[in-house]
Amino acid sequence: MEKIIYLDNNATTKVDERVLEKMLPFYCEQYGNPSSMHSFGGNVSKYLAHAREQVADFVGAQNPYEITFTGCGTESANIAIRGALEINKTRKHIITTKVEHPCVMNTYKWLEKRGYKVTYLDVNSEGELLVDELKDVITDDTALVSIMWANNETGVVFPVEKAAKIIKDKNPKTFFYVDGVQASGKIPMDVSKANIDMLGISGHKFHAPKGVGALYVKRGILLPPLILGGHQERGLRPGTENVSGIVGIGEAAQLAKSYLEDEGTRVKALRDELERGIVKKVFNAKINSTKAQRVPNTSNISFEYIEGELMLLHFADAGICASSGSACTSGSLEPSHVLKAMGVPFTCLHGSIRFSLSRFTTKEEIDYALSVIPPIIEKINGYSPYQKELKELKELRNF
Amino acid sequence: MEKIIYLDNNATTKVDERVLEKMLPFYCEQYGNPSSMHSFGGNVSKYLAHAREQVADFVGAQNPYEITFTGCGTESANIAIRGALEINKTRKHIITTKVEHPCVMNTYKWLEKRGYKVTYLDVNSEGELLVDELKDVITDDTALVSIMWANNETGVVFPVEKAAKIIKDKNPKTFFYVDGVQASGKIPMDVSKANIDMLGISGHKFHAPKGVGALYVKRGILLPPLILGGHQERGLRPGTENVSGIVGIGEAAQLAKSYLEDEGTRVKALRDELERGIVKKVFNAKINSTKAQRVPNTSNISFEYIEGELMLLHFADAGICASSGSACTSGSLEPSHVLKAMGVPFTCLHGSIRFSLSRFTTKEEIDYALSVIPPIIEKINGYSPYQKELKELKELRNF
Repeated sequence: MEKIIYLDNNATTKVDERVLEKMLPFYCEQYGNPSSMHSFGGNVSKYLAHAREQVADFVGAQNPYEITFTGCGTESANIAIRGALEINKTRKHIITTKVEHPCVMNTYKWLEKRGYKVTYLDVNSEGELLVDELKDVITDDTALVSIMWANNETGVVFPVEKAAKIIKDKNPKTFFYVDGVQASGKIPMDVSKANIDMLGISGHKFHAPKGVGALYVKRGILLPPLILGGHQERGLRPGTENVSGIVGIGEAAQLAKSYLEDEGTRVKALRDELERGIVKKVFNAKINSTKAQRVPNTSNISFEYIEGELMLLHFADAGICASSGSACTSGSLEPSHVLKAMGVPFTCLHGSIRFSLSRFTTKEEIDYALSVIPPIIEKINGYSPYQKELKELKELRNF
Repeated sequence: MEKIIYLDNNATTKVDERVLEKMLPFYCEQYGNPSSMHSFGGNVSKYLAHAREQVADFVGAQNPYEITFTGCGTESANIAIRGALEINKTRKHIITTKVEHPCVMNTYKWLEKRGYKVTYLDVNSEGELLVDELKDVITDDTALVSIMWANNETGVVFPVEKAAKIIKDKNPKTFFYVDGVQASGKIPMDVSKANIDMLGISGHKFHAPKGVGALYVKRGILLPPLILGGHQERGLRPGTENVSGIVGIGEAAQLAKSYLEDEGTRVKALRDELERGIVKKVFNAKINSTKAQRVPNTSNISFEYIEGELMLLHFADAGICASSGSACTSGSLEPSHVLKAMGVPFTCLHGSIRFSLSRFTTKEEIDYALSVIPPIIEKINGYSPYQKELKELKELRNF
């Protein structure tokens, strides 16, 4: 394989080799079923318990039993959202944001067709959530508020602790679900301190394998299962446990916690260097959400008057993996609903790229990216139908 | 770890090392998101496509797109059963059997509380399904018939092809779901030939890892998803794909197909040898379902007048893993609903053990099992409160 500069860690991450190492014994050696009577199987449940503790510690749960392992982040969100509505059945109002991940958004679109009224909170031009709006829109009928902790496209961090306070002050019966998928491993998370009712995470976003997620549900909230079956995960997520995946997400959670400092310092510095380098060398580049509090690894850059997918293809030819929007919507030609909600102008909307770094990103990789990205943009600028506008912009920015 | 004779392959199986080998590149090397625009991610989807073909070939699907990957067998069953009812909404009658797996059974109990009428088909004393009863119970209101292909406890194979014919003759609008979890890898499966609408399987029952299942849905049947989210698996099972797991189930399916002959000859011979050896040496042993057509790897033996869990503990001390009932109900003191449905007498019900072999079971292991099981039973017979009955039984059987 050729050299790959992987700057798409918000789409998925490399499994940390230390995580894989912990998983390996559970395929061909300790392969018993944790529900078995014999200790060859039964002993495996000790490792599930350990992973549960690791994830509980990672998100700030007070009790490991507040953690349920699932098949993916999408499943975590579905169990939480639909379960919370099921046990809050008389209330038919939901509040979320205009910039949630498409998978969560699709759930709300589906619920709207089934009699729910959904209020979508705005963000400002920096992508920051207008959280005070919550005060005005929560009613006695509000069953659920669902807010992401960090946005997948811009990296903007949302004030979930403040949101929780507003929600619980206004209507203690309203459940609060937080989509923690893009915050996990990037900023510290403490569900107990933030007073979050339910939090979903996805292993493959923080160097665990694909195919395993987790859901925090505060003690006292008894959600019904979405999938019906056996006793596994205390009945909330039946089916024989994905033992190696669960061991993996546990180990990855512990590692991710220990790397938070690296994320907030070294990774952030690399991200900032990438941004500075690009705006310095590319006159039509504009960083989104710079004034907002962002997770340290994410950069969203609009290249004015040019087209995102074309850039991505050229970047890929140079070995650089990045993305426009989320991987879950790639292929669609719709511009990002997140940038649209921020009021990013049409001239920038189609040329916005997300670069997302990780603990494995090196200075050399960023240097390389900075050596190849500007000439690529220069070349694509030449194809743009907006030559007049590009010329004016260049003069305006004194390049 | 001490020597383990693993005779609990109906609970879960060892991952074949050849399967693991195929999975490994997708953790730390080809870790891209198959939905990504860049080829580092996009290329991964080729491997998903290959796995889909392997599973399609394994179950006899005519088109790979009839296969959807899921998180486990339980999820496959839930998507199929609840999806079929959703698209057959006016009909409120379901037919299943008295001996389905607990996870499927729980779904029917749940549906009964939600206004569905469920008819449970009987089995005879050999555990064979009284499939002709179907003719009398299918009505215009029957939305779904759900029958397992092979029973997990007794190994008895159910005539799904005959069932399909009866169903489609009587009411072509009735959907037919088959739980293929315990048939897969043990007997040939051909959903097209059998005219099955939907079939669920679970990877970890045929030497793929835990955490991945598959669902066959006949072309033309458009099920709604159970989990809402992105476009993955054509929207039927959203969430970033469990790439390594899917590659694993694909490879395991291909291997399982190639081992069907070994299963039907060598493994069957070992199972038969185990049964012959036990009945020869243990006067109070009685093999269940010997007259029925069974999958080749499964043996269910009742040890009269003694208690199952005690046997299992002694077996485990000798390194032999076996089980009573399914792993999903272990820990409960309820006797097997399967043996109860067969009319197995009370004196046998609590002392029934399932031995389940696999391609990795050797002659040496069976010889060892036969050397330790009879003395263990002899010892436990000594503890039994039914000494008088045991003595009479021994005389009756001329030991």
